[in-house]
Amino acid sequence: MPADEDTPRRRRSLDKGRMESFSDGIFGFAATLLVIGIVLHPPGTPLHQVLGAWPAFVAYMISFLTIGAAWLAHTGLTDRLAQTDSILLRLNLLLLLMAAFLPFPTRLVADALDNTSGERVYVTMYGLTFLVIRLLGAALDRYARLAHLYAPREDGGELHSDRRKLLPVVIGYVIAIVIGLAVPVAAVVFYFGIAVYAIVPFRKVAGLLFGRS
Amino acid sequence: MPADEDTPRRRRSLDKGRMESFSDGIFGFAATLLVIGIVLHPPGTPLHQVLGAWPAFVAYMISFLTIGAAWLAHTGLTDRLAQTDSILLRLNLLLLLMAAFLPFPTRLVADALDNTSGERVYVTMYGLTFLVIRLLGAALDRYARLAHLYAPREDGGELHSDRRKLLPVVIGYVIAIVIGLAVPVAAVVFYFGIAVYAIVPFRKVAGLLFGRS
Amino acid sequence: MPADEDTPRRRRSLDKGRMESFSDGIFGFAATLLVIGIVLHPPGTPLHQVLGAWPAFVAYMISFLTIGAAWLAHTGLTDRLAQTDSILLRLNLLLLLMAAFLPFPTRLVADALDNTSGERVYVTMYGLTFLVIRLLGAALDRYARLAHLYAPREDGGELHSDRRKLLPVVIGYVIAIVIGLAVPVAAVVFYFGIAVYAIVPFRKVAGLLFGRS
Amino acid sequence: MPADEDTPRRRRSLDKGRMESFSDGIFGFAATLLVIGIVLHPPGTPLHQVLGAWPAFVAYMISFLTIGAAWLAHTGLTDRLAQTDSILLRLNLLLLLMAAFLPFPTRLVADALDNTSGERVYVTMYGLTFLVIRLLGAALDRYARLAHLYAPREDGGELHSDRRKLLPVVIGYVIAIVIGLAVPVAAVVFYFGIAVYAIVPFRKVAGLLFGRS
Repeated sequence: MPADEDTPRRRRSLDKGRMESFSDGIFGFAATLLVIGIVLHPPGTPLHQVLGAWPAFVAYMISFLTIGAAWLAHTGLTDRLAQTDSILLRLNLLLLLMAAFLPFPTRLVADALDNTSGERVYVTMYGLTFLVIRLLGAALDRYARLAHLYAPREDGGELHSDRRKLLPVVIGYVIAIVIGLAVPVAAVVFYFGIAVYAIVPFRKVAGLLFGRS
Repeated sequence: MPADEDTPRRRRSLDKGRMESFSDGIFGFAATLLVIGIVLHPPGTPLHQVLGAWPAFVAYMISFLTIGAAWLAHTGLTDRLAQTDSILLRLNLLLLLMAAFLPFPTRLVADALDNTSGERVYVTMYGLTFLVIRLLGAALDRYARLAHLYAPREDGGELHSDRRKLLPVVIGYVIAIVIGLAVPVAAVVFYFGIAVYAIVPFRKVAGLLFGRS
Repeated sequence: MPADEDTPRRRRSLDKGRMESFSDGIFGFAATLLVIGIVLHPPGTPLHQVLGAWPAFVAYMISFLTIGAAWLAHTGLTDRLAQTDSILLRLNLLLLLMAAFLPFPTRLVADALDNTSGERVYVTMYGLTFLVIRLLGAALDRYARLAHLYAPREDGGELHSDRRKLLPVVIGYVIAIVIGLAVPVAAVVFYFGIAVYAIVPFRKVAGLLFGRS
Repeated sequence: MPADEDTPRRRRSLDKGRMESFSDGIFGFAATLLVIGIVLHPPGTPLHQVLGAWPAFVAYMISFLTIGAAWLAHTGLTDRLAQTDSILLRLNLLLLLMAAFLPFPTRLVADALDNTSGERVYVTMYGLTFLVIRLLGAALDRYARLAHLYAPREDGGELHSDRRKLLPVVIGYVIAIVIGLAVPVAAVVFYFGIAVYAIVPFRKVAGLLFGRS
């Protein structure tokens, strides 16, 4: 089958459909499993217990939004793919391995945030997990570009916005991790801010608020 | 690419397929995780323990049916979508965040209903979760209409039926939550009734029973 | 849009795709969650503990195969559907509610089979769950036929085989449940046999063994 | 319906789509459930506890990569399928039954690796699970070939690479299991190596590193 198209077609036969559905599954499961980490700690009235579990709720929201942001970026990426190749699928597996790992540090942070003991280790692990997820997502994008896996002509506004946000997000995580070594709670506030920053489409929202083009 | 179609096509490139499959995954997973909250409480004969776990069975059914109703409404909504946009995807993430949270209050209610202590707090939290899920679903629908994301010509009978039921359901939840502050068990009965009301297609059933058109 | 086809087309707009993907998700999650019920009971050497957990392995296999059989039957059913309607989707939710419930009695049976105490209650509950799953599957098929939701011209050999097996399976479950009231372990053996019977395509296997047509 | 095509079409009506989506769900869910097995063992400082949990992290990685490799092989297989038949679907269920079982031995190995007691039994069980998963994957491929379920003309480079790796992988597992009876930790190192070997596309990577054709 000679190259009758200008796009390389190494593994079009393995269409990207299953890569998407497997990834959707793992992102979705990991996000849903987070709820298992929300546990009340018995001594106290019910209201006190629920209010005292705020670190668990906060950690749940941060992790859910971070997985959501990773999923959105992943969606923007596979959406532009013209084909996959064997290395992209393996990089994707590594990304999923880290995403599926997230419920563990989330549970630790949920348990530790009000304990003050051990916070530092868990919060650092939490931040490192976020950082690696984001870097693997960027590696996926980078590889897809280098290997010419993207469809040639695509506006890809979503993807560009993800790329624009990459550097601030990575720098943000590094700063937050360093801060967390001294003041763990501050790092968690940072993680929350980064998740919101990564997920909110500012231009679009501004367009909605101040009149759309 | 000039506007050669009358429907706006902001992000058709990101088709709604992955939004649907990610949502199906999280709704389905949250519904299945509910079973983890069903636990027997050891003292007593096996039969007593199983019968004594009725609050867990009831909470399981209510939550499963409520997630089912949310999924049905979601299905009716995405079915009519001609395209998605970045804000709709984010609103959808918030809806999924609440749906995935449901196993937590379900577990609390299952544990508390026969304890009488703490019931009130847990049952209120349970009802608030239902209310927010429903309101976010309505926000999704509202936004999709305002942003002209729906396909122009669609009968959408299912969607209309969901919209017709919105106000009664929201009012029902508010009343149930208020009642639950005094008599928690009564609120749970209400939640069950609302889930059944939201899920049963009355016209269709009536049509089946009394002769179809 | 006048009736230009002879098949009724009540809700073709809501294609069956999401019903399938939601169902696949819940069947798959329920089957995978079963593994959580496999737990070792500490006193004893590791080898003893693993061997002593045989009821957990058996219950895992029975439940997994039963869910597998339900999924296969479901696949054969939706495969022939020309369209869905609102009642079919609700019946399907009830079926999924029961399938997602299965990990609970599975866990109970796994814990109780070597205890002899309480076996009877748990094994009966286990069998009733199987019976209801099968009956709801049959109700789905029955409704789809009555409401003319199936595609008109389809050989549907798979479906016929499921229908042929319905009566023996239902009778088998009833007998097993009754037997289980006296000898719980015997009922479990029965459940295993029924799962194997429901899942093995005897004609096909016979064809393979004794020369295919 | 006479054979107007040269490919046999026993069960084209049941397209392979649902087999793929059900399998994606179970592989993905089993991979995500692995994280539940990662637990800290309280005595010690937080940092000690996290570092002391290295067997859990290692077992998580091995199992995740092994499921990933099984999924990749499965993808390569279904990708070439022209149709399914009832026996292939049942064999696939057995494969999924073993994949969904993996979180159990993973949890055991995670708990036992630093205990030294009981390691041997758990590590052997772990290895046997890997071996059976791989053999069932090979059986699926073998059956699909014998029953002429593959599309006639396909290069299938991915599949060939999986077949080439089958024998080394099976031999590797057998050796590792035998070694594990004496030195359990060594077997775990082997399992890790096999997972990496099964997942890395060496030719492709070599091509990338030393200049592509």
